[in-house]
Amino acid sequence: MFPVSVARRSVSVQLPAYARYLSSKGTPSNSDTPEPAGGNQTISQEVSNKQKLYITDPISPGSIFFLPNGTKIFNKLIQFMKQQQSQVKFGYQEVITPLIFKKSLWEQSGHWENYKDDMFKVESTDASKETYGLKPMNCPGHCVMYNRFDHSYNELPLRYSDFSPLHRNEASGALSGLTRVRKFHQDDGHIFCTKEQVESEIMSCLQLVDLCYGKVFKFNDDPESTYSINLSTRPKDHYIGELEVWDHAESVLKDVLQKTGKKWQLNEGDGAFYGPKLDIMVPDHTGKSHQVATIQLDFQLPKRFELKYKDKDNTYQTPIMIHRAVFGSVERFMSLLIDHYKGKWPFWLNPYQAMIIPINTKDTKQISACQKLREQLSGEAGVDAEGAIEPVPLNSFHFNVAVDDRAEPLGYRIKDAIVKHFSYLIIIGDEEVKTGKYAIRTRDSRKLDHLTGEEIYNMFSSIERSYK
Amino acid sequence: MFPVSVARRSVSVQLPAYARYLSSKGTPSNSDTPEPAGGNQTISQEVSNKQKLYITDPISPGSIFFLPNGTKIFNKLIQFMKQQQSQVKFGYQEVITPLIFKKSLWEQSGHWENYKDDMFKVESTDASKETYGLKPMNCPGHCVMYNRFDHSYNELPLRYSDFSPLHRNEASGALSGLTRVRKFHQDDGHIFCTKEQVESEIMSCLQLVDLCYGKVFKFNDDPESTYSINLSTRPKDHYIGELEVWDHAESVLKDVLQKTGKKWQLNEGDGAFYGPKLDIMVPDHTGKSHQVATIQLDFQLPKRFELKYKDKDNTYQTPIMIHRAVFGSVERFMSLLIDHYKGKWPFWLNPYQAMIIPINTKDTKQISACQKLREQLSGEAGVDAEGAIEPVPLNSFHFNVAVDDRAEPLGYRIKDAIVKHFSYLIIIGDEEVKTGKYAIRTRDSRKLDHLTGEEIYNMFSSIERSYK
Repeated sequence: MFPVSVARRSVSVQLPAYARYLSSKGTPSNSDTPEPAGGNQTISQEVSNKQKLYITDPISPGSIFFLPNGTKIFNKLIQFMKQQQSQVKFGYQEVITPLIFKKSLWEQSGHWENYKDDMFKVESTDASKETYGLKPMNCPGHCVMYNRFDHSYNELPLRYSDFSPLHRNEASGALSGLTRVRKFHQDDGHIFCTKEQVESEIMSCLQLVDLCYGKVFKFNDDPESTYSINLSTRPKDHYIGELEVWDHAESVLKDVLQKTGKKWQLNEGDGAFYGPKLDIMVPDHTGKSHQVATIQLDFQLPKRFELKYKDKDNTYQTPIMIHRAVFGSVERFMSLLIDHYKGKWPFWLNPYQAMIIPINTKDTKQISACQKLREQLSGEAGVDAEGAIEPVPLNSFHFNVAVDDRAEPLGYRIKDAIVKHFSYLIIIGDEEVKTGKYAIRTRDSRKLDHLTGEEIYNMFSSIERSYK
Repeated sequence: MFPVSVARRSVSVQLPAYARYLSSKGTPSNSDTPEPAGGNQTISQEVSNKQKLYITDPISPGSIFFLPNGTKIFNKLIQFMKQQQSQVKFGYQEVITPLIFKKSLWEQSGHWENYKDDMFKVESTDASKETYGLKPMNCPGHCVMYNRFDHSYNELPLRYSDFSPLHRNEASGALSGLTRVRKFHQDDGHIFCTKEQVESEIMSCLQLVDLCYGKVFKFNDDPESTYSINLSTRPKDHYIGELEVWDHAESVLKDVLQKTGKKWQLNEGDGAFYGPKLDIMVPDHTGKSHQVATIQLDFQLPKRFELKYKDKDNTYQTPIMIHRAVFGSVERFMSLLIDHYKGKWPFWLNPYQAMIIPINTKDTKQISACQKLREQLSGEAGVDAEGAIEPVPLNSFHFNVAVDDRAEPLGYRIKDAIVKHFSYLIIIGDEEVKTGKYAIRTRDSRKLDHLTGEEIYNMFSSIERSYK
């Protein structure tokens, strides 16, 4: 459909951070040219249209408008990642950084020379008249932040995470859905560490990957094949840095991979010119492999930004930088999920968590019981003695619950909720109003349970907390 | 320090959404020229330097780099607002929208004509060569989204919320701290409703304002004066729309204000040319008033975008649009909070929630108890039977807890934690290791309690949930 060269360029938008820098250096690698998600463009758009997840518009080609349902899924994914990363054991510190930077930053990072055509340029009215670039990646901004403070060896590793929107000026003809975009978000992270810390940092990155793709997002029923790892090593000719550093880094990566006991594959000579890397691949429903996470060692950028830390012996050393993302592009990850679930979202991600259905839509008691239950499940706050609304406690659960009180037959409304993939259907008639125990079933089974509002709330909370 | 005209322009960056459109129309209003937060530029920067909240850098003037501690506060504020707004009773649906839009959008909205110089222009490489504008406000994007779908009267009111980063091209000389910025975020919202729904929508907006400034963020100890409201009515000459619609809208606003029983003040003729508005003011420590929230009726933009809904009688009607924000600019709101708390954050917002201090820093049992407690309070997840890390449940609490095991005298470390405004100090010696009950005190009182790790976690959760 698109000229291959264009398709390859636009597809690599999914690659985290610094990776694109590589592709423009003319050293192609397997992982720089992942295939677009197998035919899921159509599935993704079909599900999106039905579930109102997102739209695109020629007024801003390649920038997604996430509708309320798509935003709910997007936010849950980010919340999941923040919860994991901020633990002491992973130790990421989230930061919020600027979106536009003066050209001089991109010159220092090397992007202006190698990547200029893929960046959006922003006009300046400053006295200096210096052009700005709308950031395509977070790393140079994180280097600016690192450099603002003095660092001692005992502060390292320092790990920044950042969920900033990123922009890449892809050709408008190549844009499509969630996979070929101009604006996207990464669950981006940069680790500044010493040479000695590389091993434990890579191990920690792989643990986070395993948590994500081994425990929560399983793209394959076979537990041995939920994901696979590619190790890409030093390009034969085009690389920077000392051979010894490369050899050490590669042997560390191999050691770590052996220790994890996970399947991995060697892509010899396929690393970035600035360091070796690991790419994590998940299969789609056709068995085709897609890159999600990446972990890239970088000996280059810290030098360009003259990053330093004071070592034990009071000398100044250059840290090693690790670029890593677990989802990769969140937009692209969502398209893989849409392809995988085909609208039948697990409860925690489902914008359609429960539909409450009154048996008799003319019965005011039934309707009022439905409304009351909806408010309870949506985590509504109450009012104080003077009638003023109390705040909803921080970290409460709000479930996505609707009431279908349209004047349609009960069977029609039940079927409609199932077709829309509501995780749960709650049916309220006279008996339920009387007992306060509501009939509840899943979309997949006709088996009815009878639970109070509180029991349903607690059940939902427990399911959502455990990412089911 | 700055020429008045420049200062006035840059200060109005705090105003939500559509307001700036007004100022460039040459109809000045009180609320378009709020004074910068009284002298808090210095306090704000002093606290920030001490607590490492944010930095700015000439590489991107006017764009804040939020450091990890500032990001924690920023995220808590957003989380608070999302929790409140998404309740059924307020009914906002969050959306994520593009940051760059083609010039033609800004021409349709009127911004290109009136606001062009204050927008960052983004170069296009599209075949059309049409310039893009980096968005200074969300409303036109929300109109695009509204227009994509057919709407019936019974779907209204439709309420979008959006936390997108916004950019305004302020003169670089006028930029300063968190209050005079080029990149900022709003807790923005737009309501599309019928004429008949205006009253209940305004009432609902004011309830959210009251929840925020009457219950959680109290800028004044006197409950009668935590905030005040200004009503700005139709400008004498320069306005659009029918007199009758204006009169109706203004009388609705006055009625609602009377019903709330809150103090309010009439600023006759000070409304926007496109509709009347309410501005919510809070006092700083000197008693000076600052605008935070705003609620603006707009009869103009829906016409420019030809927004429609199908009424009961099958005719197509134009909805009324309400622009509203509760914090206003989140950056500016943070600067008011910094000025108000001066680094002594309430527990739920505090990046320094608890410091754990071993009495004897050479005692491995004490140190290990400190680390264990830190992990417990940070909400660490465990491992499964095979040693793989389990995911942290969604919506768990992670508290900001540190351990001070520096080889310094106990008294020094206690004093240091108090100076840094840690909310709680937890002291662990032999006795505490033996009993598993830890000595805990606040920064303000020497009184010690003895609690288990679980009791501390539950106490912290309860304090944080209630925004204390």
